[in-house]
Amino acid sequence: MLRNIVLIGSGKLATQLGSSLVKKGFNIRQVFSRTHCNAEELAERLNAYATDRLSEIQLDADLYIIALTDAAIETTIEQMPKVNGIVVHTAGSLAMDMLGSFENYGIFYPFQTFSKEREVDFSEIPILIEANGELVCKKLESFAKAISQTVMVCDSNQRQQIHLAAVFACNFSNHMYVIAESILKKYDISFDVLKPLIKETALKTEFLSPVKAQTGPAIRGDKNVIDKHLSMLGGDEELAELYSKLTQRIEVLGARGKLLDE
Amino acid sequence: MLRNIVLIGSGKLATQLGSSLVKKGFNIRQVFSRTHCNAEELAERLNAYATDRLSEIQLDADLYIIALTDAAIETTIEQMPKVNGIVVHTAGSLAMDMLGSFENYGIFYPFQTFSKEREVDFSEIPILIEANGELVCKKLESFAKAISQTVMVCDSNQRQQIHLAAVFACNFSNHMYVIAESILKKYDISFDVLKPLIKETALKTEFLSPVKAQTGPAIRGDKNVIDKHLSMLGGDEELAELYSKLTQRIEVLGARGKLLDE
Repeated sequence: MLRNIVLIGSGKLATQLGSSLVKKGFNIRQVFSRTHCNAEELAERLNAYATDRLSEIQLDADLYIIALTDAAIETTIEQMPKVNGIVVHTAGSLAMDMLGSFENYGIFYPFQTFSKEREVDFSEIPILIEANGELVCKKLESFAKAISQTVMVCDSNQRQQIHLAAVFACNFSNHMYVIAESILKKYDISFDVLKPLIKETALKTEFLSPVKAQTGPAIRGDKNVIDKHLSMLGGDEELAELYSKLTQRIEVLGARGKLLDE
Repeated sequence: MLRNIVLIGSGKLATQLGSSLVKKGFNIRQVFSRTHCNAEELAERLNAYATDRLSEIQLDADLYIIALTDAAIETTIEQMPKVNGIVVHTAGSLAMDMLGSFENYGIFYPFQTFSKEREVDFSEIPILIEANGELVCKKLESFAKAISQTVMVCDSNQRQQIHLAAVFACNFSNHMYVIAESILKKYDISFDVLKPLIKETALKTEFLSPVKAQTGPAIRGDKNVIDKHLSMLGGDEELAELYSKLTQRIEVLGARGKLLDE
């Protein structure tokens, strides 16, 4: 069992993951951060040693979790001492091979969006696992299952497809909220009015495939409303074009759905 | 106080609204639907009379709520007897003027997406109100406040802007979920893996403006990941183009945000 852990990073993910692990009885031995006071602050919370030097990383832990930004992971790996424990990174879009200089390595990718303002419940976060050998994979899997209900073993290609899907489902849907907010702002209407709708639209996916949950003028083929909206967006050609594109995509899906129903 | 109500329609909205009103002690006098058995079914649940003829609508109710599809509203209004009570429709995108043949009229627009599968809590649904006179507006407002915590009086233009914003925040964000599901389907990955992320992305808006909540490769300016994603989408030119457009929009917003922060 992987019990003794070195946490490399002190950001949003490292902080939330560290807290969850300590609560579950894991022993965080050491926290590394390039910024000493960040390392100290998190280490204190997790009852661990702090360091700002990769050369000082303890060599005999069971697991090293690199929870850094994508850009920082590569240089960190190069500078890390050759430890014996399992080394994992937490990035959705980076390949596992970059850890190839270690004996035992893999991916531990908590599939969620993290923010400083909000503590998340790790038990509800899917964790995607990949490893360079069966035994390492089994160890990582049982470790992940100790903190999450949903653990998926998948290869780099699957993980990257899931990451791409997440860009649409999370990043781009958030951009739709941004556009909505900007439309309301022009008329001094508070974004609050949209919050229940945004919440319900997301919660619907729990029990209804999004294809079936589609509502709005596009899926109804309501040309009057669509034309009205396009004229309302007339001042912003780029936005009007985006509205048209998305409307056409939904119309096509609607037409296909009808054909399948017949 | 508006206590005696005739409900015109028997669909998702009429059903959920009717149930909420009865729970709050309102008296649903009559339910109209063109399809007699639908009228009967809902009327029975609400302890009301049923009719499938507009000519049989009771003339002395306080409030007539037309909860029909946009397309059905116009012909229904033409065929309704000239009642004395207040007549409202529930459509976000239709003007109030179409009710001009009545003495007292207005809009009662519950701003939410409804599904048969899921009962919603009306107290959390914003209700947008408009009326053809101050007294009618006051009456509608206090009626709406009896079932919802959030009641907004707004004119037709504001309501239509809110409806346009909702197309982005609800209909188009749902389409992003549809795209994500289709990407996963190709690799036999269950959509379930995305659900916690979708939920968290939406719930974040409760306490964080979506502009501040933006994450992902576009806002980080992570060209490696963006190029990788575009090559993964290579087989679907239209989708790759959509990815590019949305990425560019987010990059521009990110650049503007940085300028503002400096």
